[in-house]
Amino acid sequence: MEYLKQKIKQCGIVKKGNILKVDSFLNHQVDVRLYEEIGKEFYRLFKDCEVTKILTIEASGIGIACVAAQFFNCIPVVFAKKSKTSNVSDDVYSSVVPSFTHGNVNTVIVSKEYIKPSDRILIIDDFLANGAALNGLIDIINQAGAELVGAGIVIEKGFQDGGKLIREKGVRVESLAIIDSMNDETGEIVFRN
Amino acid sequence: MEYLKQKIKQCGIVKKGNILKVDSFLNHQVDVRLYEEIGKEFYRLFKDCEVTKILTIEASGIGIACVAAQFFNCIPVVFAKKSKTSNVSDDVYSSVVPSFTHGNVNTVIVSKEYIKPSDRILIIDDFLANGAALNGLIDIINQAGAELVGAGIVIEKGFQDGGKLIREKGVRVESLAIIDSMNDETGEIVFRN
Repeated sequence: MEYLKQKIKQCGIVKKGNILKVDSFLNHQVDVRLYEEIGKEFYRLFKDCEVTKILTIEASGIGIACVAAQFFNCIPVVFAKKSKTSNVSDDVYSSVVPSFTHGNVNTVIVSKEYIKPSDRILIIDDFLANGAALNGLIDIINQAGAELVGAGIVIEKGFQDGGKLIREKGVRVESLAIIDSMNDETGEIVFRN
Repeated sequence: MEYLKQKIKQCGIVKKGNILKVDSFLNHQVDVRLYEEIGKEFYRLFKDCEVTKILTIEASGIGIACVAAQFFNCIPVVFAKKSKTSNVSDDVYSSVVPSFTHGNVNTVIVSKEYIKPSDRILIIDDFLANGAALNGLIDIINQAGAELVGAGIVIEKGFQDGGKLIREKGVRVESLAIIDSMNDETGEIVFRN
């Protein structure tokens, strides 16, 4: 997705600690036209997978997933919720997820009502770095006995090992932009291929 | 919006403490077709207001706002973030918001970069009850010196006074469904009009 890469180069800000700030267009202020292009591209990649439901995680995945779902004939979106407590009820699936950005731990929960063994699920999220959030969502899909068709990621930090480890487990991961390196002094961002 | 009211009657669950659970279609699992109808209706209501930006608050407002923005020619969406700390930086507008649902206090923040005095802002959110979140967003718009054209709300709890108080301040509030009463024993939900 050239438009996405251009947008990242033009508006992304590289910060110390391998942080890429994209909040002017992706996850604080939102370029809805870009979300449409992202949704269209996820549809192109996964249109033959008979997806029945999109699973994402609050907060910044929600808008991307909802706009993408429109290309999949408006299949339902489920967003996993983050909870500070590990004390969850029986009617939810839950998984413990360490947060790279915030340096804490969240319990991620989804009501058992909303994922069924008959579901074929596409995960959508904005970032893939160490894979913690994605692993949590995969864990929940496995608990539900549903089928995971793959994960659509907007930006993957290719220099962290989340994507590699999850692909090695046999999960299809499609990232629209993979960053091989970035430099907080020069601001340079190098994309894969 | 008849379709929305039908959906609430059919799938909403009234819980003790005046809680309306709509997480099967609005704020955990999402009926994206309903989001489209909601977006279309907000556009019908506010299309002549020269809206330049939609402001919402994480998490459940984001999907509604992003889908609605598509009807407004993909104007940007900004979603206010919730922070547990009141210790915020100089480059954000912030407002303290008590949470009705969770019984705690959040500081709601928006980067100063993303609201300018020239902006004409439409607020979109899923619920209006005591008006705490909406007041926080209005406060932020006022701090920025931007113009508030109004607020588009999906479900208003008409038996709480948030909507009344905010309308009395001269803010245009358009709620797609206003609930006058609900009963957790019978499950009955009575809409206004």
